[in-house]
Amino acid sequence: MVGGGRGAFIGGVHRHAAALDGRIELVCGALSADSDKSKLSGADLCLEPARCYGSFEEMIAVEKALPSSVRMDFVSIVTPNHLHFPVAKLALENGFHVLSDKPATFNLAEARELGALVKKTGLLYGLTHNYTGYPLVKEARDLVRSGRLGKIRKVVVEYPQGWLATRIEASGQKQAAWRTDPARSGAGGCVGDIGTHAENLAEYVTSLKISELAADLTSFVEGRLLDDDANILLRFEGGAKGVLHCSQISVGEENNLNLRVYGTKGGLEWHQCEPNTLRVKWDDQPAQIYRTGSPYLGANAAAATRTPPGHPEGYLEAFANIYRNFAACIAAGAEGRAPTGIENDYPKIEDGMRGMAFIEAVVASGKANAAWTPLPV
Amino acid sequence: MVGGGRGAFIGGVHRHAAALDGRIELVCGALSADSDKSKLSGADLCLEPARCYGSFEEMIAVEKALPSSVRMDFVSIVTPNHLHFPVAKLALENGFHVLSDKPATFNLAEARELGALVKKTGLLYGLTHNYTGYPLVKEARDLVRSGRLGKIRKVVVEYPQGWLATRIEASGQKQAAWRTDPARSGAGGCVGDIGTHAENLAEYVTSLKISELAADLTSFVEGRLLDDDANILLRFEGGAKGVLHCSQISVGEENNLNLRVYGTKGGLEWHQCEPNTLRVKWDDQPAQIYRTGSPYLGANAAAATRTPPGHPEGYLEAFANIYRNFAACIAAGAEGRAPTGIENDYPKIEDGMRGMAFIEAVVASGKANAAWTPLPV
Amino acid sequence: MVGGGRGAFIGGVHRHAAALDGRIELVCGALSADSDKSKLSGADLCLEPARCYGSFEEMIAVEKALPSSVRMDFVSIVTPNHLHFPVAKLALENGFHVLSDKPATFNLAEARELGALVKKTGLLYGLTHNYTGYPLVKEARDLVRSGRLGKIRKVVVEYPQGWLATRIEASGQKQAAWRTDPARSGAGGCVGDIGTHAENLAEYVTSLKISELAADLTSFVEGRLLDDDANILLRFEGGAKGVLHCSQISVGEENNLNLRVYGTKGGLEWHQCEPNTLRVKWDDQPAQIYRTGSPYLGANAAAATRTPPGHPEGYLEAFANIYRNFAACIAAGAEGRAPTGIENDYPKIEDGMRGMAFIEAVVASGKANAAWTPLPV
Amino acid sequence: MVGGGRGAFIGGVHRHAAALDGRIELVCGALSADSDKSKLSGADLCLEPARCYGSFEEMIAVEKALPSSVRMDFVSIVTPNHLHFPVAKLALENGFHVLSDKPATFNLAEARELGALVKKTGLLYGLTHNYTGYPLVKEARDLVRSGRLGKIRKVVVEYPQGWLATRIEASGQKQAAWRTDPARSGAGGCVGDIGTHAENLAEYVTSLKISELAADLTSFVEGRLLDDDANILLRFEGGAKGVLHCSQISVGEENNLNLRVYGTKGGLEWHQCEPNTLRVKWDDQPAQIYRTGSPYLGANAAAATRTPPGHPEGYLEAFANIYRNFAACIAAGAEGRAPTGIENDYPKIEDGMRGMAFIEAVVASGKANAAWTPLPV
Repeated sequence: MVGGGRGAFIGGVHRHAAALDGRIELVCGALSADSDKSKLSGADLCLEPARCYGSFEEMIAVEKALPSSVRMDFVSIVTPNHLHFPVAKLALENGFHVLSDKPATFNLAEARELGALVKKTGLLYGLTHNYTGYPLVKEARDLVRSGRLGKIRKVVVEYPQGWLATRIEASGQKQAAWRTDPARSGAGGCVGDIGTHAENLAEYVTSLKISELAADLTSFVEGRLLDDDANILLRFEGGAKGVLHCSQISVGEENNLNLRVYGTKGGLEWHQCEPNTLRVKWDDQPAQIYRTGSPYLGANAAAATRTPPGHPEGYLEAFANIYRNFAACIAAGAEGRAPTGIENDYPKIEDGMRGMAFIEAVVASGKANAAWTPLPV
Repeated sequence: MVGGGRGAFIGGVHRHAAALDGRIELVCGALSADSDKSKLSGADLCLEPARCYGSFEEMIAVEKALPSSVRMDFVSIVTPNHLHFPVAKLALENGFHVLSDKPATFNLAEARELGALVKKTGLLYGLTHNYTGYPLVKEARDLVRSGRLGKIRKVVVEYPQGWLATRIEASGQKQAAWRTDPARSGAGGCVGDIGTHAENLAEYVTSLKISELAADLTSFVEGRLLDDDANILLRFEGGAKGVLHCSQISVGEENNLNLRVYGTKGGLEWHQCEPNTLRVKWDDQPAQIYRTGSPYLGANAAAATRTPPGHPEGYLEAFANIYRNFAACIAAGAEGRAPTGIENDYPKIEDGMRGMAFIEAVVASGKANAAWTPLPV
Repeated sequence: MVGGGRGAFIGGVHRHAAALDGRIELVCGALSADSDKSKLSGADLCLEPARCYGSFEEMIAVEKALPSSVRMDFVSIVTPNHLHFPVAKLALENGFHVLSDKPATFNLAEARELGALVKKTGLLYGLTHNYTGYPLVKEARDLVRSGRLGKIRKVVVEYPQGWLATRIEASGQKQAAWRTDPARSGAGGCVGDIGTHAENLAEYVTSLKISELAADLTSFVEGRLLDDDANILLRFEGGAKGVLHCSQISVGEENNLNLRVYGTKGGLEWHQCEPNTLRVKWDDQPAQIYRTGSPYLGANAAAATRTPPGHPEGYLEAFANIYRNFAACIAAGAEGRAPTGIENDYPKIEDGMRGMAFIEAVVASGKANAAWTPLPV
Repeated sequence: MVGGGRGAFIGGVHRHAAALDGRIELVCGALSADSDKSKLSGADLCLEPARCYGSFEEMIAVEKALPSSVRMDFVSIVTPNHLHFPVAKLALENGFHVLSDKPATFNLAEARELGALVKKTGLLYGLTHNYTGYPLVKEARDLVRSGRLGKIRKVVVEYPQGWLATRIEASGQKQAAWRTDPARSGAGGCVGDIGTHAENLAEYVTSLKISELAADLTSFVEGRLLDDDANILLRFEGGAKGVLHCSQISVGEENNLNLRVYGTKGGLEWHQCEPNTLRVKWDDQPAQIYRTGSPYLGANAAAATRTPPGHPEGYLEAFANIYRNFAACIAAGAEGRAPTGIENDYPKIEDGMRGMAFIEAVVASGKANAAWTPLPV
């Protein structure tokens, strides 16, 4: 693991997610850019001191030299955004699979370079757009794919948060500090941090790609350098239209990622705050409530579920599904077989490139007073 | 009452709303452009045959000639949109107050002319933007006005419906037929029918005016002449931003008018499908659930409520509040006194002008590929 | 109308309910036992002073003497419980139909006498167990009757309120005062006021009768003479079991009448606080959300609905459905025809007798330490 | 781990829960009474073949002989109920701490014996009444303890399920088979399986003990030997009253454990299906929505939370909190220190004894036609 030392947030999430099924063991880490802090953080996690490295370069070099039965199988990247690319690049170049936090890179050019490298090395690259790990998000995608909703016409996706409604970055809140710093976060603030999740969710569920968008970006909090609110019109390939709005200044909102999709025959609605319920709506019959773990769900949803219906599964379980599928694909490779469709269902570098293209298009549109801007493919 | 004969929808709503408090009596009507049908419809409603008129011109002329103790006190207009203006104009010119269904007129020019006429005659003009009649909508407005939410930054307002997802106007559905006909509905389809409600709700609750907008309008159903879906970016005077989307092709949606408003200190959320609940959100303390009829609500909400908390009040009660306040203002005038603030809280011609300006701006922006378009004042 | 003068609660509800459809006009009243107050209250309602009577005896005597085209068609009783019987009795004996607030009488003996009188006179008697006026309550009953849920096994019905959590009757709150006074309310406190509604709702929806019950009654508030909380085990004819609990000391609860019914094949769930939603649950397929006004609902629900889906209908509309059906049955009688099944769907004296039997059984069981007690038929 | 081999349910839950924090490692197991199956099941879990035992007796004997640095630290018991006691007894007698699935034993006599043994050995005994592991359940308890709700008057706790609405045990469903078999499940069916969870939750949150109860038990499904539905009146020490109902024949219900508690000043409501929301209700101010992870929550809730608000935590996380606290107490003991209050917050043998007393009282009351029955202490 690279990043995720004391004071970090997402590193702990990755560790819980990796641990949940008892199949993945954290064996080493460059948990901090500060060598001492890396060792202290590693001690918190019962890592062997010798495998608590002071830098990712050291980690990769030393681990590579270890016997294959001992050395790490893949690298988890949980650093701020600006380090995603250099770590992933070095890992891939040295033969390690990579599972990275999102967004994939600092900018689109890096993402494209990474895409080429993944292709060249034949190694696996996963990206923790974790919301697609929820069982009912998979069911929603399968429902759209089945054609039961008809041709998709409209998509509404939103991700409001409120935690950056004041300038908490000025008071040293670590999570806020790097997310509002263009040098570490990239060109997008709110858009890069959570807007990409919304974009990924919409494209995942609908199997449609956004073709162009018009974005009104705002930095409401005085002195903030990056956007903290975005209202975006979407047009999809094939004619669907939509709205994406995300915000970090919507006071009182937690992580309210919500999705509504409407086709010619039916609609669906999913809310991350109540992730085990999927509402499916029809023109002429009562709406239906799909519930995680129910016997009528499809194979993908079933495979992503650990408990019976009514025992709520949450964020960590969804996150763990990304890890589980990614690890299963590594195992499949080790066994010399192709992964199953279920195993192969995790976000990849292509999703990462889409995300970076989305961020760049949004920022460009925002600068151009919400002019329609295509997503570079 | 003009319009609202057999087969109509909103006429019945107006009649229920007017009747609810037992203070307003329907005394005459030009319920249909067809004289026979007008009489039959009047008979359904126990009107005196002699006061079931074949045209609004006849109604106004005959009623005007009746003794003041007998003749109608005001005219309710519940026709398709294209007739709102001529009826209102004639009524005002003949000394009758007017309570009209929305939108106020067929276009902005008419609305302005009507505004001038209202001013000139000194008569009362009300507009049934009925959603502002809900107690908790009034409370929401008062909450914003109190400053407790801080300065407003973001507004999300939406009104999805699904009933026009197929071309039911082609099969003779009367409500669909005129709403999708530019000659009777005006320049806006979905935008005029329900988008104006969303616009009015947002402006009412925030006490802010939309300064410009960028609208992506679509007619998804083949052969339909007017928009049936709209995604709109909003900018408000004073710097708030927002999104308004409305739709009549969102399969499975009923009349899901929803509003979220976020200020620097707090936020609020209201849903028409559950109108007796208002969620108020804070940065650092638990969200609160305000409920219709509760003792902690303000005077405006209290005055708009007929039953104790937990006895749900609905659409007709909200609609009736418009009628009640309008009638109270007429009564105040008859008594030679100024109406109270509570009585005077109903939508007026200024709201009608805003609504028509909104429709025209949306349609213009839509034609210009979602270019930013100001709302003419 | 008898009762319902200034300061009353349910009288106003009855008047709104009667007025809503514009078919029933309040023509006279004995609105208060105090003759002056009766006239003042009548003036508030625009009644002719001559028809504001000082007593119900006077009202019945004078109205009876009026020409049939002028005199009242039926008597609405909205007094405290102890007066329900004498007013109803006198009205029936003088040829007037009766629509009474619940519970029907002060005790079961009176209810039986009233039942005999209704039968003997052939006049109509309606009882405002208003919750059965909700469209989806009718749909729920029809769903059970259709057999789609299978044989009913379990019923959970609850009616928690919190408004009597402190001894507000001691401070002169009029509504609290008579409801906690055995001389005016009868043997049951909470059980008579709202427990009967729960009982009626359960029996109406399931079409099953409670055969015996075991009740744990409590007066939590010191000094209160009647129960303010009841927990009751239910056994139904045919073997279904259930729980009924009601309370007026459940702080923070409004009028949360809730019903769940489970059969061998499916279940249903309805909440008065969100009355336009009915959840229907299945063993092997997703739960369904039935919504008021939807095209898939049956004839009874449709007839009880005034607006399209998503325009919430509330308490007053449900109440008005009792009035509407009752008035339709009077009209049918006047026309010499039998009422339709839809018209005839309102609570009658038989429901009133069930309610009084329920109250007496609960109180008896409560006194016997929750011993099983049959409901006298 | 004892039990939890292929085909089991709760064993997997325990393993996920133990693994989640990366601090507990499954090192050995007697996963099945069938030695071969135990080894196969162990292989599924990557256990060393040598530590996949054919019986719990073997496991305990062999592990005891291992060096302390290698041997298991505690025994998890995830068998059907009838084996809980013998395994726990042998483990304790051989110096191993025990974490057992509930109910603690097969009957109350065993639970008492176990209680004495725990006391005598000084070893730790934990019981997975996992619902008390939810952050907001802890907050609810702390809220009651703080006195902010006043003196508790009423408790409504319910746990409806629908999965045993038909006789699926007859078709070989393993989970159904042992739960409906008196020889493996004990005297209670539904009551033992889920009723005890409801009892534990109510007593945990209110800090009140049930003093007596009156239970109406039913076996609705023909041929079933144990109860599948229970309606129970509760009386608590100190005068609070309540209702507990649980069911396995409530078609369409999942694991809908719900709790409502009302005091003299306020009330609270929690639903397992939406476990990250706690409604807190007041007499004279708006209800509040407490949310997992929020900064205003107390120390116990905070310590039981792994992610920020709006990232839903679920059943496994709550379960893991039992494991985490239990393991922390073992660690504290190893470090020679007393556990903190937060660490020490997990269900113990005293809870197990309460649970068994509850089951026996319910069954006895059920046999006596719902006679009031005290809970033996």
